[in-house]
Amino acid sequence: MILCQDVAKLRELVANFKKENKSIGLVPTMGALHEGHASLINASAKENDITIVSVFVNPTQFGPNEDYEAYPRTLENDCIVAQNAGADVVFAPKNKDLYPNEDMTWVEVTGDITKVLCGRTRPIHFRGVTTVVSKLFNLSRADRAYFGLKDAQQTEVLRRMVDDLFFNVELRIMPIVREADGLAKSSRNTYLSPEERKSALILSKSLKLAKEAFTNGQRDVEAILNLVKDTIQSEKTSQIDYVEMYKLPGLKPVGNKIEGRVLLALAVKFGTTRLIDNVILEDK
Amino acid sequence: MILCQDVAKLRELVANFKKENKSIGLVPTMGALHEGHASLINASAKENDITIVSVFVNPTQFGPNEDYEAYPRTLENDCIVAQNAGADVVFAPKNKDLYPNEDMTWVEVTGDITKVLCGRTRPIHFRGVTTVVSKLFNLSRADRAYFGLKDAQQTEVLRRMVDDLFFNVELRIMPIVREADGLAKSSRNTYLSPEERKSALILSKSLKLAKEAFTNGQRDVEAILNLVKDTIQSEKTSQIDYVEMYKLPGLKPVGNKIEGRVLLALAVKFGTTRLIDNVILEDK
Repeated sequence: MILCQDVAKLRELVANFKKENKSIGLVPTMGALHEGHASLINASAKENDITIVSVFVNPTQFGPNEDYEAYPRTLENDCIVAQNAGADVVFAPKNKDLYPNEDMTWVEVTGDITKVLCGRTRPIHFRGVTTVVSKLFNLSRADRAYFGLKDAQQTEVLRRMVDDLFFNVELRIMPIVREADGLAKSSRNTYLSPEERKSALILSKSLKLAKEAFTNGQRDVEAILNLVKDTIQSEKTSQIDYVEMYKLPGLKPVGNKIEGRVLLALAVKFGTTRLIDNVILEDK
Repeated sequence: MILCQDVAKLRELVANFKKENKSIGLVPTMGALHEGHASLINASAKENDITIVSVFVNPTQFGPNEDYEAYPRTLENDCIVAQNAGADVVFAPKNKDLYPNEDMTWVEVTGDITKVLCGRTRPIHFRGVTTVVSKLFNLSRADRAYFGLKDAQQTEVLRRMVDDLFFNVELRIMPIVREADGLAKSSRNTYLSPEERKSALILSKSLKLAKEAFTNGQRDVEAILNLVKDTIQSEKTSQIDYVEMYKLPGLKPVGNKIEGRVLLALAVKFGTTRLIDNVILEDK
């Protein structure tokens, strides 16, 4: 496996892959790789000749009071995880490589799709995501790009971006990977104290209850949202940022009754750590 | 030559060109093709296996009080000009093809580079240009894209965009094509009355005088700007929008003395028609 920390070098590698007609899979990450990332790399390695894993803590998707500085940086271990999962290249550029000019060129999806859910408290987040992912799409010339469904709004925003700008890349969205006890895997889980880690289980538990209610016929949006909120609030240390439902695809308003395919998503803080999780409710 | 008015069809054509390892040149235009465009198509046909000419009056680069409705639309003739100049495909999509969603995904270059010159009176113009050109880059999968130096600021903005977003396209910037009497070719020249057409000659004349002064050793920015302004104002019907100088590349402030490579650009109205022209001043 090649560790590449240079844009020009990556472009040369990619140009050679392309000359050899190799298909390329891209797994964009911020590093601190866990089994969720590994599942994306695995999927890419199965479906492509070459798998490029980018490791880049993207400054433009963090707000001024967010955890950019604290975000875990574990490149050495990331290379091991990536290699074991089947990566051919780890691309770990520096900030000034991906942002060569002081004035930015932004790629920004507008409308409610970036304003609801996480967009409400993180107003510049998705602009940073779409900008850096555009750069990575062009640098990697990927045929397929792999993202986890845990960042459900991100996948919807990226889908819109690909659709609007006609990127020649297929988005492959992979299921959430969870710890044995249900907590969704996240690089931010390492922030949690043992107490908070225990409390955070209420998230997957509340979504499981919602799913059960749905399976048992509950279609009332308010009832399901209240079920989730009440469950989470039973854990005294939780601070709910949002618990909401939107139609898929496109995160359109859901109305009073669940119909078709619906995203039930939540963001909740435990101490200073903000976690997200979600489930899709859909008639089979 | 193929006239393609459908996004899916174009992608199919391009996929086949790529399969055959053909190099692709893109000439993005708003139609009303004249000899300036023909020179771009010619250049592309010489340097690429396939030349795609897009003909699309892009609504997002026009301000609310600009000439979007009035802009000349001459697709039938454009196809003849394109074919004679060596085009293989004319791509003439509809608005809803290039803008499939109501909420936009914008590609926007920020900073002074888009705020000076035309950016001052046309604040949303370059955002529209970079957005549509991004779409066309991805749809055409072009190896090279051809733009005229008449839109000098546009070429600088696009160069920045390509640099920032790592588009895999080589920008080829071609010289200004002029009428026999010196007027820069423009689709908007057709708006001019016979009187205005005559008055507009003052633009190229003033730039010629500036170039002569520069060649004769004049390096004082103010002196050259005043020479151009005074010359233009000698034509009573002219209304100057701007006459300015910036360093190339990147349109940085020029200071008091001309050094290196400098863009001298102007925008002037005659009646309701706004024309632009420019010259590059550079020590040989």
